[in-house]
Amino acid sequence: MFFKVKTSEEVLEILKGFGPSGDEKISIELALGRTLSRDVLAPENLPGFYRSSMDGYAVRAKDTFGATESLPALLDLTGEVIMGQRPDIIVRPGTAVKISTGGMLPEGADGVVMLEYSHPLDEKTIEISHAISPLENVIQPDDDFKKGKTVLEKGHTLRPQDLGVMSGLGISRVSVFQRPKVAIISTGDEVVPIDQRPEPGQVRDINSYTLSAFCRQAGAEPINLGLCGDNFEQLKDTVKQGLDRADTVWISGGSSVGTRDLTLKVFETFDNMELLVHGISISPGKPTIIAKIGSRAIFGLPGHTASAMVVAEVFLAPFLAGLSGERALSGTSYEVEAELSRNIESASGRDDYLRVRLEKKGDGLMAEPIFGKSGLISTLVEAHGLLRVDRNTEGLYQGQKVRVMVFNPIKGGSG
Amino acid sequence: MFFKVKTSEEVLEILKGFGPSGDEKISIELALGRTLSRDVLAPENLPGFYRSSMDGYAVRAKDTFGATESLPALLDLTGEVIMGQRPDIIVRPGTAVKISTGGMLPEGADGVVMLEYSHPLDEKTIEISHAISPLENVIQPDDDFKKGKTVLEKGHTLRPQDLGVMSGLGISRVSVFQRPKVAIISTGDEVVPIDQRPEPGQVRDINSYTLSAFCRQAGAEPINLGLCGDNFEQLKDTVKQGLDRADTVWISGGSSVGTRDLTLKVFETFDNMELLVHGISISPGKPTIIAKIGSRAIFGLPGHTASAMVVAEVFLAPFLAGLSGERALSGTSYEVEAELSRNIESASGRDDYLRVRLEKKGDGLMAEPIFGKSGLISTLVEAHGLLRVDRNTEGLYQGQKVRVMVFNPIKGGSG
Repeated sequence: MFFKVKTSEEVLEILKGFGPSGDEKISIELALGRTLSRDVLAPENLPGFYRSSMDGYAVRAKDTFGATESLPALLDLTGEVIMGQRPDIIVRPGTAVKISTGGMLPEGADGVVMLEYSHPLDEKTIEISHAISPLENVIQPDDDFKKGKTVLEKGHTLRPQDLGVMSGLGISRVSVFQRPKVAIISTGDEVVPIDQRPEPGQVRDINSYTLSAFCRQAGAEPINLGLCGDNFEQLKDTVKQGLDRADTVWISGGSSVGTRDLTLKVFETFDNMELLVHGISISPGKPTIIAKIGSRAIFGLPGHTASAMVVAEVFLAPFLAGLSGERALSGTSYEVEAELSRNIESASGRDDYLRVRLEKKGDGLMAEPIFGKSGLISTLVEAHGLLRVDRNTEGLYQGQKVRVMVFNPIKGGSG
Repeated sequence: MFFKVKTSEEVLEILKGFGPSGDEKISIELALGRTLSRDVLAPENLPGFYRSSMDGYAVRAKDTFGATESLPALLDLTGEVIMGQRPDIIVRPGTAVKISTGGMLPEGADGVVMLEYSHPLDEKTIEISHAISPLENVIQPDDDFKKGKTVLEKGHTLRPQDLGVMSGLGISRVSVFQRPKVAIISTGDEVVPIDQRPEPGQVRDINSYTLSAFCRQAGAEPINLGLCGDNFEQLKDTVKQGLDRADTVWISGGSSVGTRDLTLKVFETFDNMELLVHGISISPGKPTIIAKIGSRAIFGLPGHTASAMVVAEVFLAPFLAGLSGERALSGTSYEVEAELSRNIESASGRDDYLRVRLEKKGDGLMAEPIFGKSGLISTLVEAHGLLRVDRNTEGLYQGQKVRVMVFNPIKGGSG
């Protein structure tokens, strides 16, 4: 078999080739975290009328020209704007009308004097101690959005404020990319379901739970195809089922060479299979296989949960973002800066992803690498994130500032 | 009325006084993003048996002592460990048994020689070219977790790997704090429901949508009590309903002084009301009111959506984390470092929260402040995050490195 070990960068580039499978129109109440499949345009001007941005008095700006603390302008108070109504009063020269923030500017007025600069002399007269220019403290009809303007772009992932803005524009349904569907298969003769008591030599299924939750966290829909022994025909059927039902298939291997070989053999039974990656030059996570079957990516992941999670954080997260149609501002992933607690030697030729614990230290953070035997899962719960030690570095030093990819403590993902 | 304007720090300290209201036991499949209300202890040893961490040969370490490339040890191959089964073979002196990663160590063996250091001579004999020490490449029964050991602590918010580890330990249900319930009320005579066409002078309800989504994103459960005009009795009844049904009540005001006064008047009708905050020395967001009624916090938020969102990001996010029982590692909020694109003057006496756009610049990010009239919502969708200009600073300079609180592009929150 020819050599397909790739670097992280090559793998990320390959994964960029996979995009979203389709879109759908949904209510904005369900759209939090979804990614737009089309630009959203303003269907109308917003706010649509001249609106005061302050509490104060609607006036003709001209009437305030030259007004100062020592030489105030005197205006006749002729009424008040009622919130939520078109005012039936007209501001004529020499007059003022009381207005609240958000109120509609009455005809004739072209500016608002803030409450702070106005002093009622009696019920009918106010003193203005500050000149305003035309349109001061006024929001114009299309100041917020002009009809037809792009409000949000295709590829944007919707945040609370985006939903708010759409509701403000009367947009109650929106086109978003479909959530990627991920078929998850756990393999290995030694793996038993979580509700079964393992006999000596057996372990419970960890990867199905971890990877399903990882998918939900990333906004994808996991389809758990359950456990599959190290049996060629059974695995082949299960993968086929995954390809039928999902946009991508993830097989988390038993971690033995035998299981990995089996996964590859099953891949090879598909006519239109193209092997893209056979090994990645990272640690942990090296024994990762990626193939393309038709238009779908299919992954053979390491069996060790800790290794599978590194592959998930580093490669599957951006892969799912791509399947979601997300056009993220890169460089804003959840990284924090921290001071390294000890020297780290670099293993040449591969990128090491160390699990690290973050501790507060003064105003900043200290990153403490967690070491442990390969195959342990306890190191996973102790870690707050991953520290990448690049294959081209000669090592990292105690006290050095490093960037840590923080495991996402995302909430709202279990619904 | 006495002076209750507080600094950000004072407000955050006050909000720490509110904690979770109760807990519940749920399936781990629903527990992503939830916060533990009790420590999780290991109910058994994990893995529970001696387990190989490598593909290779189970041997007696003693038999390999002194073995080198030039002087290998010769061992009799007597069988193979079947995955998921207790081996019925015994490793006697001078013998070796083939074993895969994750396989159970046979009786008699105390270490595993990696495949790389073993060369089969014929079907019955292998050559070992590397000495191992006892327990090398072996995971002991309690290496991962010792029975009774704390696996995850109370206050920890559950990530995918935490669910995986619990499944590995056979823990299928877990005690978590209840999701905080948030009653949301929009006020203002000028506000109409989203599906209604606003007349001149009217605007659609934005805050209900924004704040509801903000709650879902933070793992809280919004209870939308709808619109309430500037009507004392109606608002009082709606607040009462909110106090009955939720852990906290958020009233997003019309932004006029009149509406704010009304909110305060309604607060004052409750016997056990204690006014905690009447104004915060920040901009935007100053006209925020916080009171305690019984054990519940009740908020009067600014009517401008942009201001309400600043208050939400800065104060309501940690408040909800507190109600969720979360013991977050502070300092790891979603902040990124960026270079400031221009000079910023500081307004003395208050903390300014500027909306900023982040743009890639070389390897890093550039933070570009977005300015706009007060009351606009378009600035909200353009911004990627908030930049705090501390009240004690003399300003920020172009080219200076600043930290930006990134608006959370959280996914998986709409289910």
